Amino acid sequence: MPFTRVSLIKGKPPEYRRAILDNVYQAMLDTFNVPEEDRFMTVTEHEKNDFVYGQNYLGITRDDDLVFIQITANNTRTTEQKKALFARIAELLAKNPGIKPENVFVNLVEVSKENWSFGLGLTQYA
Amino acid sequence: MPFTRVSLIKGKPPEYRRAILDNVYQAMLDTFNVPEEDRFMTVTEHEKNDFVYGQNYLGITRDDDLVFIQITANNTRTTEQKKALFARIAELLAKNPGIKPENVFVNLVEVSKENWSFGLGLTQYA
Amino acid sequence: MPFTRVSLIKGKPPEYRRAILDNVYQAMLDTFNVPEEDRFMTVTEHEKNDFVYGQNYLGITRDDDLVFIQITANNTRTTEQKKALFARIAELLAKNPGIKPENVFVNLVEVSKENWSFGLGLTQYA
Repeated sequence: MPFTRVSLIKGKPPEYRRAILDNVYQAMLDTFNVPEEDRFMTVTEHEKNDFVYGQNYLGITRDDDLVFIQITANNTRTTEQKKALFARIAELLAKNPGIKPENVFVNLVEVSKENWSFGLGLTQYA
Repeated sequence: MPFTRVSLIKGKPPEYRRAILDNVYQAMLDTFNVPEEDRFMTVTEHEKNDFVYGQNYLGITRDDDLVFIQITANNTRTTEQKKALFARIAELLAKNPGIKPENVFVNLVEVSKENWSFGLGLTQYA
Repeated sequence: MPFTRVSLIKGKPPEYRRAILDNVYQAMLDTFNVPEEDRFMTVTEHEKNDFVYGQNYLGITRDDDLVFIQITANNTRTTEQKKALFARIAELLAKNPGIKPENVFVNLVEVSKENWSFGLGLTQYA
């Protein structure tokens, strides 16, 4: 059920953007108790002018390769699972498409299980 | 107060996209205790490369006409109201613009009543 | 940690869009207990067809200069802080880039402190 929005500055090739989606999904499979095929994800590209970030917030050095990853998911995970997800996303994105871990920003929004319809007008988890 | 973001693959005509917004709003009027005029909605189009989904998750067959509908609303609805909303959205979108119910994905994000300003810098619901 | 998405109708110059981000950030510094450099923000422009709003909901007269501001932040603020944030955003945007307060729509989504990774795969607030 996770619904994922990735935002980054315009200019990366399609394969680069797709690799982000593929690896965020892989990280969910590995750490977040997400079943196969449970992936719903978009990328949005922004003009440099329209994408702003603290370059040194918390002492981490970010640059224009920064990626915002916002994941909406059920409120059923432990803090340990969240930590494992964030770590795994950064680890996999460092390998492919090659994003330095300083540039991986992740935010999790949690919702109730009855807050999803995966098609057919049904509330599959309620 | 619902704030709605619709995401789909690029290429549908403007009337098609607008029909999605109009009918999601109509479904809210019909089932979700939303007053007239209480609509705040956007559509974002994505490259096919940037829009990924499980083609058979939960045994539902999706294709590139899939639409992601994310609705932020107050946390005041019952599960029955949520079920009615999801069912009504799928029903209305099947009629216009003609989206098969397998391709209607909805996610609800809930917030507190004091989390909105509808203009003038005021917190109208608090 | 606030993560902010601004949505508006296409056609405003870059400086106008950037002024929105700068002043929403300033309002957070002023009222919301947000530290310097803690800013992560995007703007998305929409076709007029893809941006729909109640023109008079709650008796407020909106027009095509309407801006949707959705802020995801920790669930640690009081209602008074939220009210102050909304008021300050409207006040600052009226000055620069000159948006009338009727056209400033803000929605706050709250999450737990452990729901953020600001880089390096770490969960900085947990």
